[in-house]
Amino acid sequence: MRIAAKSAGPGEAEEEPGRAGGRTAGAAERAKRADFTDVRANNLGFVLRQVRAEGRCSRADLAAKTGLNKATVSSLVAELIERRVLRESGSVIGNIGRPAVLLSVDTGYYASLGVEVNVDYMTLVAVDLAGNRLLSWRRAHDGAHATPGKSVSALAGLAKRAVDRMDSEGRQILGLAVAVPGMIDNDGVVQRAPMLGWSDFDLTGRLRQAMRDPKYAVTADNDANLGAVAEQRFGSWAGVSNMIYLTGEIGLGAGLIVDGELRRGATGFAGEIGNLLIEVDGRVGRVEDFAGIRAVLDELSESDDIAGTEVEAEVEDIVTRARAEEPRVVAALERIGRCLGAGIALAVDLLNPEAVVLGGHYQALSPWIGPAAETELAARTHASGAGGAEIVVSALGHEAPALGAATGILNDIDAGLMPTPLGR
Amino acid sequence: MRIAAKSAGPGEAEEEPGRAGGRTAGAAERAKRADFTDVRANNLGFVLRQVRAEGRCSRADLAAKTGLNKATVSSLVAELIERRVLRESGSVIGNIGRPAVLLSVDTGYYASLGVEVNVDYMTLVAVDLAGNRLLSWRRAHDGAHATPGKSVSALAGLAKRAVDRMDSEGRQILGLAVAVPGMIDNDGVVQRAPMLGWSDFDLTGRLRQAMRDPKYAVTADNDANLGAVAEQRFGSWAGVSNMIYLTGEIGLGAGLIVDGELRRGATGFAGEIGNLLIEVDGRVGRVEDFAGIRAVLDELSESDDIAGTEVEAEVEDIVTRARAEEPRVVAALERIGRCLGAGIALAVDLLNPEAVVLGGHYQALSPWIGPAAETELAARTHASGAGGAEIVVSALGHEAPALGAATGILNDIDAGLMPTPLGR
Repeated sequence: MRIAAKSAGPGEAEEEPGRAGGRTAGAAERAKRADFTDVRANNLGFVLRQVRAEGRCSRADLAAKTGLNKATVSSLVAELIERRVLRESGSVIGNIGRPAVLLSVDTGYYASLGVEVNVDYMTLVAVDLAGNRLLSWRRAHDGAHATPGKSVSALAGLAKRAVDRMDSEGRQILGLAVAVPGMIDNDGVVQRAPMLGWSDFDLTGRLRQAMRDPKYAVTADNDANLGAVAEQRFGSWAGVSNMIYLTGEIGLGAGLIVDGELRRGATGFAGEIGNLLIEVDGRVGRVEDFAGIRAVLDELSESDDIAGTEVEAEVEDIVTRARAEEPRVVAALERIGRCLGAGIALAVDLLNPEAVVLGGHYQALSPWIGPAAETELAARTHASGAGGAEIVVSALGHEAPALGAATGILNDIDAGLMPTPLGR
Repeated sequence: MRIAAKSAGPGEAEEEPGRAGGRTAGAAERAKRADFTDVRANNLGFVLRQVRAEGRCSRADLAAKTGLNKATVSSLVAELIERRVLRESGSVIGNIGRPAVLLSVDTGYYASLGVEVNVDYMTLVAVDLAGNRLLSWRRAHDGAHATPGKSVSALAGLAKRAVDRMDSEGRQILGLAVAVPGMIDNDGVVQRAPMLGWSDFDLTGRLRQAMRDPKYAVTADNDANLGAVAEQRFGSWAGVSNMIYLTGEIGLGAGLIVDGELRRGATGFAGEIGNLLIEVDGRVGRVEDFAGIRAVLDELSESDDIAGTEVEAEVEDIVTRARAEEPRVVAALERIGRCLGAGIALAVDLLNPEAVVLGGHYQALSPWIGPAAETELAARTHASGAGGAEIVVSALGHEAPALGAATGILNDIDAGLMPTPLGR
């Protein structure tokens, strides 16, 4: 590699507008990242990703792995340490020369917060820079009946408790991201979240206000998108380049990983899979109506009217009856699985992923719906063998969207959007 | 920007395996490009794209635009000139100092070839490094009835004539890419091209053989994918980040541009849109069966049995009758347009593009099917206003796949996969 740093000390490193602190997570910015306008930012991200991949490594290892020369690597590492992204952690004695200092991701300084608000619950996850869970809270929340204002208050209350906890540990908050079951535009405005009764609702603005205008960014995204982000980073198919993640909550949504990145579409509305039309056993209908969790409850719940907060208990009850091999339950779940597989086949024809991940309540129901869905997928796709696509069960379950919200910020950092420690 | 070239003379530039000459155009390699393992390659591509965007510019302009320092820019430009990618073309006198030499894309040295084989025709396009058409040939070819061997001979014959012509102009061939209406895996093997009667057919291997193992790469890709590449580079919506291109040949295929790049899926099979189920006026069926060009002919052609080579004439006849406002023709085209719009709506829900481009025979039929499709799209998508998606008509028509084949190689060069002139 022929590129050398002449004078790239961290003190001289350019501070770009919008790089530190007030970042937004819109698709426009993400798209911009894909261009190579900022060589140093790319290199910072590249070195960080190398350290992540190796666990611990020396500057010399990094020079060998990246092809950058040692002076450049030292300068990049110095900046990453100053930014509290990397830290020195011990040293190792090699065959010749001085002991090499080892570098690892600095897990002690930052925290990133993700919250999910849904029909029946709220979830909060905090992670450090390595993605280790610092907090993982879940509480019942009747999102279907709460006013938007009440939901914002509940969200702000939950987030404030987490912020206080992180403060008390001396951690700086990188950002707060909210997962919402609905269509969020690239400005963070909830265009439609029918299950929550929200439309054209400036969630992030209201939440910033309720939290008294914090210094870190407050963003929002679709729950399926964020679930996909979490699955790609931490799930059983982590690192897969092409994946469709299905939410499996009361509504059916999809998050799309294509060529290694979450794809939101032009205006943030990609992944609306529920309208796909399927024909199974001579019946024609929308895949969400035939195979969403509401269809499961409508068909199998023994309650007449289910409050949002009771969905999980109802699903558990259905699982219990399926385990007991109650014929009606097993047959219905199998039929629902076939409907789900029919819908998945259409999306697989279009997107040709390696994996379709069943998230949310599908996780608990997967022993019955999974095999039926897989059979139908294989039978219906244009490509033989479903073009290699497999249906797999989420390892993260209901935590996925909040975890994805918290880790989306880590993806930004990995891409070179480096945070600035307070007081600098 | 803090990165300076210490000694990046082109003579020292690393020659990476696979970079020069025998490139392949598989998705795996494209995916690899997205990582930042090769800073110099990225920078070469970045400088080239800047020159393209500016038309003509000086080294000082490039330093200002890219943020790279002047020594780095000079070194990158020297390599690009040596590789015959840029050339010096005149100079301009500024306010101070020496006249600045202007740089532009070198259009005089390379040629890239694209061929399309389809049910009713073959098309060949040759372009220079700026994408200017050097050749644009079209000939009838009864792909539906020719044996694979005969199609390969016809392709090789057409390509050889083009190669000879380029040779006589002193141009070096960058590569030959073939567009096929079928599913091509990432190794260039045609898994299925039902309309041509091909399955598991090593098209590129056979073509290399028929052309006596040329020095340049011979690749193959799906016609819809390559049409999308051409539309994104040269079409009326050039530069759009999210687009669905529809082929509009006897079969219905889609090429997907997502976040600025063609997406082939995990194994190269993305874009199979024909199986999408639609319900229009109470009838349920596949979008390809209801709205493909075969449906147009089945419904409106006055001939009983149409040979592949007659499709274009039949479509022209239908257009003539539609222009004469023959009620049955107008009504049928409108109904077909609504079916097409219903299918497009499902894909738009999933992918949220800015534009859906109607290619191939849809171009001629668009005055009748386009408005009907647009109405149906707006009425059916989950996002209001179709999430901003518009249905637009291809400006490139039947030339698009072959043009995309020829220009795919330019995209590789723009991404930093630089060619090496012969004799080096």
